[in-house]
Amino acid sequence: MAQDQTPGEKPGHPPAQATLHEVRTAENSAPYLLPKLQSMKESNPHLKLLDVGAGSGTISVSFAKLIPDGHVTGIDVNSTILPRARAVAEMAGVENIEFQQGSVYKLPFADETFDITCCHQVLIHIGNPWDALREMLRVTKRGGIVAAREGDYESECVWPELPELGKFHTLMAGRMSSGGGTPTAGRQLVSWALKAGVERSQITLSFSTSSYHTPSERASLSKGLCDQLRGGSLREIALKFGLGNDNDLEEMAKAWEEWAKREDASLAMLHGEILVQK
Amino acid sequence: MAQDQTPGEKPGHPPAQATLHEVRTAENSAPYLLPKLQSMKESNPHLKLLDVGAGSGTISVSFAKLIPDGHVTGIDVNSTILPRARAVAEMAGVENIEFQQGSVYKLPFADETFDITCCHQVLIHIGNPWDALREMLRVTKRGGIVAAREGDYESECVWPELPELGKFHTLMAGRMSSGGGTPTAGRQLVSWALKAGVERSQITLSFSTSSYHTPSERASLSKGLCDQLRGGSLREIALKFGLGNDNDLEEMAKAWEEWAKREDASLAMLHGEILVQK
Repeated sequence: MAQDQTPGEKPGHPPAQATLHEVRTAENSAPYLLPKLQSMKESNPHLKLLDVGAGSGTISVSFAKLIPDGHVTGIDVNSTILPRARAVAEMAGVENIEFQQGSVYKLPFADETFDITCCHQVLIHIGNPWDALREMLRVTKRGGIVAAREGDYESECVWPELPELGKFHTLMAGRMSSGGGTPTAGRQLVSWALKAGVERSQITLSFSTSSYHTPSERASLSKGLCDQLRGGSLREIALKFGLGNDNDLEEMAKAWEEWAKREDASLAMLHGEILVQK
Repeated sequence: MAQDQTPGEKPGHPPAQATLHEVRTAENSAPYLLPKLQSMKESNPHLKLLDVGAGSGTISVSFAKLIPDGHVTGIDVNSTILPRARAVAEMAGVENIEFQQGSVYKLPFADETFDITCCHQVLIHIGNPWDALREMLRVTKRGGIVAAREGDYESECVWPELPELGKFHTLMAGRMSSGGGTPTAGRQLVSWALKAGVERSQITLSFSTSSYHTPSERASLSKGLCDQLRGGSLREIALKFGLGNDNDLEEMAKAWEEWAKREDASLAMLHGEILVQK
């Protein structure tokens, strides 16, 4: 979900905070869904896929490449990210895709429109994820799939354990909660799907990890977080909600710079994944 | 590492607490190592592999099946588990294997004896894991591999969040620390390998997960933990170190029984994995 963009960025250029999101693809962010997508594609090459909370669209675009005879719709609640998503698709030469504005709570589509409806790091940020899942199920065809992959922020493993990085973790969890989100989303996906009205037997649960540890991954993560701490929406929210002052945020940024230089440094997190058979 | 067996169990039968460990195989517990093992086997079918902290030997035995023209040695500091490991090998019809007693701090082998030296959930339990890695490197041939997979207990995600399960987590972390172990082992593997004297460029780091969420997995985990809480070494240690009294332990066991019945229940954890090229 494109929560991190700064209003006023040039259309077609990534918001500073989106840089970390634009490495995401279907292959690295939705491998749990790909075998099912491939088997569905074999019986129907014209699959219709909805990517909810598409953000700058890199995952949506890679789904579109995987179903060249199908069609992908990317939707995001924030209309300011849409020009960037369209630019990402155009740069990739992908034409079987469209992006539009809309809320996961009220998707602008008829019942049973899509074969696959999926989201990535969306439910973790919203207050009523079961309502979102119910709405995703509504627009999905019978025999189709609703899929979600969400982080479990409380599983985050950071090394070395610099004190300012612990404070950063608390800041990020506070930011997530203050926006109505659930830092422990990953472990709660099944309970949310049950609350959305599906049977346990319809749900396939799995877990996977994401991590940053190579020199380029460390540099990229550190730069992305420092940009957010020094000038992005994270700084604005931290100051607004009293989650940290200017000095606190600068100390956290310096800690991330130090972390990136440490050759034993890593950050890893667990993600929950559900496939719901409608 | 076979830390959980109760002295006095019949040889050839699994200690109650080992039941949870005996589902472990190379395929489910060491997938990060298998591509390297396969490529090494192509150039040398007669690989010699040392499995440190072999416990009841299920991982060692599955390694032996993967290198039928090679040989596996399983070693464990606790000699009382060895008859069980030998029985596991015999039941599997595996003959290219032997088990013996020994400490990871002083492996009873000459320098450069093995092509692959590996361990699984061993370093998390001991006080000087870098010394263990240095010793594992010593007995490994030049051009060989030292491999370790260790959990990061602080990444554990349990749902639902029953209060007694939180107390159980604290008990387990306390037990690990009181024995000299490191609950955050998974994230520290690279730092330990550097401390053992290897270069960062020799190390490949990855992360993976383990989880329990199907009805049979939930029942099996719950039974294993209840057995430990009601009569195993965990109970003895908890009482000895004041980590809980009889009533506390019984309440925890009841919570695990309740957890197993919940269809939204899951437990997942992140593991760190290193391959060190000697």
